[in-house]
Amino acid sequence: MTGALGYVETQRAVVASADDPLVLRGGRELPYVEVAYETYGELSPERDNAVFVCHALTGDAHAAGLHLGDKKRGWWDNLIGGSRAVDTDRFFVVSANLLGGCSGTTGPLSLDPATGRPYGLDFPQLHMSDLVAVHRRLLAHLGINRLHAAVGGSLGGMQVLQWAMDVPDQIDRAVLVACSSRLSAENIAFSAVAREAIMSDPQFHDGRYVDHGVVPAYGLKVARMMAHITYVSGEMLESRFGRRRRGGEPSFDVDFEVESYLQHQGTSFVARFDALSYLYLSRLLDYFDAFADPRAEALRGCATRFQITSFDSDWRFDTGQNRRIVEELAARGHDVDFAEVHSPHGHDSFLLEPPGYHERIREFLR
Amino acid sequence: MTGALGYVETQRAVVASADDPLVLRGGRELPYVEVAYETYGELSPERDNAVFVCHALTGDAHAAGLHLGDKKRGWWDNLIGGSRAVDTDRFFVVSANLLGGCSGTTGPLSLDPATGRPYGLDFPQLHMSDLVAVHRRLLAHLGINRLHAAVGGSLGGMQVLQWAMDVPDQIDRAVLVACSSRLSAENIAFSAVAREAIMSDPQFHDGRYVDHGVVPAYGLKVARMMAHITYVSGEMLESRFGRRRRGGEPSFDVDFEVESYLQHQGTSFVARFDALSYLYLSRLLDYFDAFADPRAEALRGCATRFQITSFDSDWRFDTGQNRRIVEELAARGHDVDFAEVHSPHGHDSFLLEPPGYHERIREFLR
Repeated sequence: MTGALGYVETQRAVVASADDPLVLRGGRELPYVEVAYETYGELSPERDNAVFVCHALTGDAHAAGLHLGDKKRGWWDNLIGGSRAVDTDRFFVVSANLLGGCSGTTGPLSLDPATGRPYGLDFPQLHMSDLVAVHRRLLAHLGINRLHAAVGGSLGGMQVLQWAMDVPDQIDRAVLVACSSRLSAENIAFSAVAREAIMSDPQFHDGRYVDHGVVPAYGLKVARMMAHITYVSGEMLESRFGRRRRGGEPSFDVDFEVESYLQHQGTSFVARFDALSYLYLSRLLDYFDAFADPRAEALRGCATRFQITSFDSDWRFDTGQNRRIVEELAARGHDVDFAEVHSPHGHDSFLLEPPGYHERIREFLR
Repeated sequence: MTGALGYVETQRAVVASADDPLVLRGGRELPYVEVAYETYGELSPERDNAVFVCHALTGDAHAAGLHLGDKKRGWWDNLIGGSRAVDTDRFFVVSANLLGGCSGTTGPLSLDPATGRPYGLDFPQLHMSDLVAVHRRLLAHLGINRLHAAVGGSLGGMQVLQWAMDVPDQIDRAVLVACSSRLSAENIAFSAVAREAIMSDPQFHDGRYVDHGVVPAYGLKVARMMAHITYVSGEMLESRFGRRRRGGEPSFDVDFEVESYLQHQGTSFVARFDALSYLYLSRLLDYFDAFADPRAEALRGCATRFQITSFDSDWRFDTGQNRRIVEELAARGHDVDFAEVHSPHGHDSFLLEPPGYHERIREFLR
């Protein structure tokens, strides 16, 4: 079956419960964890063809195919499908929402069993290893011990790296795209402004906005509009919008096309994402520092093979940041398959199909 | 007298009144305009040694010296003084707050004579030429017809360019630092997010916040924190703050030093700048497009000499944007004194003293 997947459904699995709680790396416990996930393709009888897809900061489990009644295909639909780079005729693909997210996996808006209310800011701070732990429990639930590959872009790639450190040899092939082993000061600065916008919104109510029947929509919108600028390139904005106006006299309305584009990005984000999840996952990223983690030493001699891809116009996680991972892995004995791919689309290139990019992944997974 | 200036005072002049209103380029009139300004040095008997200093988006008239009781020197104190690049032993320096500003010159918080209330969003949209017109009226008030030089960084440099177009030959030497003839789509995008943060703050009250006894402090703070990232370089943030933390467990507080820095930038800005002025002046910048202005043709054959300086780490108004001005001027017959100066400090380099920068200005003004 060549091409796009048909209808798919998001499923749920309970992976932690009172008698088997999830102990977080920071020490706290979650007594109940549910995971939202999707699968595409068939698991082989030998259970050796599983590929795990890790999503980025604001992604979800719906990576490919269509939901019934929906028109928009999964966020990585161009990569995953029959005869695509992640070939669902060959692989059993698992895509799951992150711990701390807002699309079906336990997160800060989930009910705290201790109080019966949403956690809000009582939700614990998370470590990248905690995201890995939840997805490993999902794999166990699915009866899978070993991954043919784990594939992720941005935060997703960082999760793959942590996974390879936390559980050496569970992943045969680790595909990291447009990521970093640690955020730069500038990366953290942008995160800090986004959080400031969210938390200073009067409708944030100290994270108890659900109790007030509101969401900090203004702050979340501003956060996303700003972040979106860092996901694309100046070159892309210039060629797509330039200084084109929508007509009329100068005003504080949406005068320029690029403003209209950002408005759309901000508004649609508020409709699909949660402010607390944004806080928790962005903070987790700030603290991520893979090669300062003692577990990085487990990479020495482990059998996982790594492929790393950066994009030349990505200024959020630029080639230098990706190359640092290559060098740190090399220092631990790994011969990494690295390339910088040309693409004018900035960080978001990992969701697109610049020439050479999908071909690299296809080859590496073969 | 070598070195820093002593005490200086901000003065005010009325430059438009009911019988001599300021007709704006967009057609509306301001029936009363006051300008805040400072002067340093002595005007020569021939009145031929005046240098006009144009400030950037959020600057003010206090460019050099000390105000009585204040500890902080003027924002361009390192450039202006006895034997400094803009030598107050030789030049009579005039520095004035912009129309639309909030530091003594008429702006959106000024009283609208028609209503007796602050203008708020009834203040007219401004064109760069309007800022020039007000400062030209100030010069006339001071009895000055001709400028030995006009010097400006960022928006200030753009004002100098507009001035040279609007009134050919009034400026002998035009010094433009770290500016652009027109904002890029990315520049406009950042401006748009800043305005979104301000205008969506519930305390903005459609620009009538003064009537409510509040200011849109949250939005203005977020706007500045974000904008500040674009004023510095990633390299500077990395070397100065890196990933240094302030201790403690991960939280949504100010965990990283770079966050503390941004908090300080945001908070101190709210104390000194007005939200409406930010809207008006940032919007004016969005619309600025010097060489699309028919008046640019007046540059052909005009006697003004131009010096343009960019900084290699400035990604707000990068070397390409500065070079475009050089090329447009060259196409109109000007041999521009251009250089890209090395500095790790990003756009804000124009306020600092990277090697070679002040020397260039000193030479050019000689």
